[in-house]
Amino acid sequence: MPELRKDPIVGRWVIIAHERAKRPHDFRPDPPAAESPESCPFCEGSEERTPPEILAYREFGSRPNGPGWRVRVVPNRFPALKVEGSLQKRGDGIYDMMAGIGAHEVIIESPRHHKSMATLGEDNIREVLWAYRDRLNDLKRDNRLVHGMLFKNVGAAGGASLEHTHSQLIVTPIVPISVWEEMTGALEFFHYRGRCIYCDIVQQELAGEKRIVLDTPHFTVFCPFASRFPFETWIVPKAHSSHFEEIPKPAVDDLGHVLHQVLGKLEMALDSPAYNYIVHTAPFDHAGLPHYHWHIEIIPRLTRVAGFEWGSGFYINPVPPEDAAGFLRDAEVTAGPHNQEPSPTHARTPQTQPLNR
Amino acid sequence: MPELRKDPIVGRWVIIAHERAKRPHDFRPDPPAAESPESCPFCEGSEERTPPEILAYREFGSRPNGPGWRVRVVPNRFPALKVEGSLQKRGDGIYDMMAGIGAHEVIIESPRHHKSMATLGEDNIREVLWAYRDRLNDLKRDNRLVHGMLFKNVGAAGGASLEHTHSQLIVTPIVPISVWEEMTGALEFFHYRGRCIYCDIVQQELAGEKRIVLDTPHFTVFCPFASRFPFETWIVPKAHSSHFEEIPKPAVDDLGHVLHQVLGKLEMALDSPAYNYIVHTAPFDHAGLPHYHWHIEIIPRLTRVAGFEWGSGFYINPVPPEDAAGFLRDAEVTAGPHNQEPSPTHARTPQTQPLNR
Repeated sequence: MPELRKDPIVGRWVIIAHERAKRPHDFRPDPPAAESPESCPFCEGSEERTPPEILAYREFGSRPNGPGWRVRVVPNRFPALKVEGSLQKRGDGIYDMMAGIGAHEVIIESPRHHKSMATLGEDNIREVLWAYRDRLNDLKRDNRLVHGMLFKNVGAAGGASLEHTHSQLIVTPIVPISVWEEMTGALEFFHYRGRCIYCDIVQQELAGEKRIVLDTPHFTVFCPFASRFPFETWIVPKAHSSHFEEIPKPAVDDLGHVLHQVLGKLEMALDSPAYNYIVHTAPFDHAGLPHYHWHIEIIPRLTRVAGFEWGSGFYINPVPPEDAAGFLRDAEVTAGPHNQEPSPTHARTPQTQPLNR
Repeated sequence: MPELRKDPIVGRWVIIAHERAKRPHDFRPDPPAAESPESCPFCEGSEERTPPEILAYREFGSRPNGPGWRVRVVPNRFPALKVEGSLQKRGDGIYDMMAGIGAHEVIIESPRHHKSMATLGEDNIREVLWAYRDRLNDLKRDNRLVHGMLFKNVGAAGGASLEHTHSQLIVTPIVPISVWEEMTGALEFFHYRGRCIYCDIVQQELAGEKRIVLDTPHFTVFCPFASRFPFETWIVPKAHSSHFEEIPKPAVDDLGHVLHQVLGKLEMALDSPAYNYIVHTAPFDHAGLPHYHWHIEIIPRLTRVAGFEWGSGFYINPVPPEDAAGFLRDAEVTAGPHNQEPSPTHARTPQTQPLNR
């Protein structure tokens, strides 16, 4: 059973994954994730190669764990947390810990061997977003769990071990420290100014224009003022809402377009970089919060020089966000057909791309 | 002029390095840092290839910026911050910023082409520590500056661009968020318990033994309970002290031995991994703090799967710290001669080492 442990100084929880335990000689680079559609466990027709599905949006008459699906959610085969058991919260002197209870799921975004969400049609992306929402709503009924983190790893440098486009959901009995810090900071601002800080940021970014990447009826996309990473990009809904899972239908419709555009722009401008995106959303056990605002943070993995930044939280960003936003605004994405086929010209593996470090 | 910008939500300051500004196509992997001693700007005899030295411990009669030094400190040729100018603290609506004033120095740890601090003699390491202290004491007299962060990047994956063993010092007009968070958390504990949390941790680790790597008269070395990274290792002084630069002579003597041992153990156990270490120390503008405790955090860069952890602060560590400490305890380091020559068998470049991802 994995264990959740709390750093007694800063309050950060980490997962100690006993069952994935490694010996020193296990730290070798993984082989390239260059599986062909024939060997890919996420492609249609290979359903038996994943754990049984939790959710699938399927063609009428198709059967669970067989072909005929459009978006499919399965448990992670190597989960960081386990669903069964009790939390067993306990202490050991100064330390706090609990059992590594939680959910770790994989959202397979297409039955075909697309390597990028940006090559999916907008309707396809919308169904991925509905799957995000449906899974959060299902899991928040489990009162052992308090937070759901949706994220995507793309490319070897982004931590992806399979190239077939997919997202992940980790649902935990604790609030991850980045969300906790955001909530704390946003609450302080709310106490002082009486407004949501994210709403204020959106307003100022729209007025200033220089860091805006895309502006749609429901979303503002910009490179944040204090970007930690080159081409860091945030997608923030214009209407105040603390919980992603409360997203209304018109916003889902718009976000399908926004993600298609923004990820397409990143791929155009940066030659299909490795990247991560993370959906920051409020914990389950809070009702709608006036001070917190869900959003998506996209972090391209361009610089290998994380160096001391990892440990210090002190980042040096060589690309002013105003410049990054300009490059992304100028990158034009053609609206592809709704279910574009994976192009054979995109067959390079992540490892051979110059930007994946 | 670089700019310091504050994230308005979480309060994290970042350096936006305008002058290092890059265009999208600049993000290519750097060529391997496999310079030979002939081409290395840090080797004795190449002093003219660095900016003029700030400090050097030299043989009697040798001249500045010429041969005859043992440890040498120079300005970084591509500094993240600039020494000259005023802070120009200002706001723009919701945002806060100031000029990127500060110091960015390089501590060259040996005149010879050693690739690892672990192959230096203990006396040599002690002189590196004295240089750390002398530079902090000099820079803290500049009342624009409030914090000095000493760190070391080793290997390409650690962010090193030169392999000749060196450390860096970044002195800033703000407190890096990781130190700020530690100070805040430690102060909360102090208010509640009336003791330094680091002192309590050292006591509990020594009593429990299972995470101890090394125990010397002045230092406790252990893999922390909530390690974020495999083989993360902390070096904590036993005597309470908030400021590294107040380290007494007997502790420097001991720390030379401790660093030699611990870095040697990491290299033995993990086949010369890329790593970073960071000296966490209190800001200049506080006198001795009863609640904060300087220490060194060593982070081997073994897992390429930083994935979403970078953005979420939520870490999955596949090596329980108890196991890591066991491997490190068992790794035996032979006490080398005090000025061991770089061995030709260590001539592999960081890029060709399997663990540097």
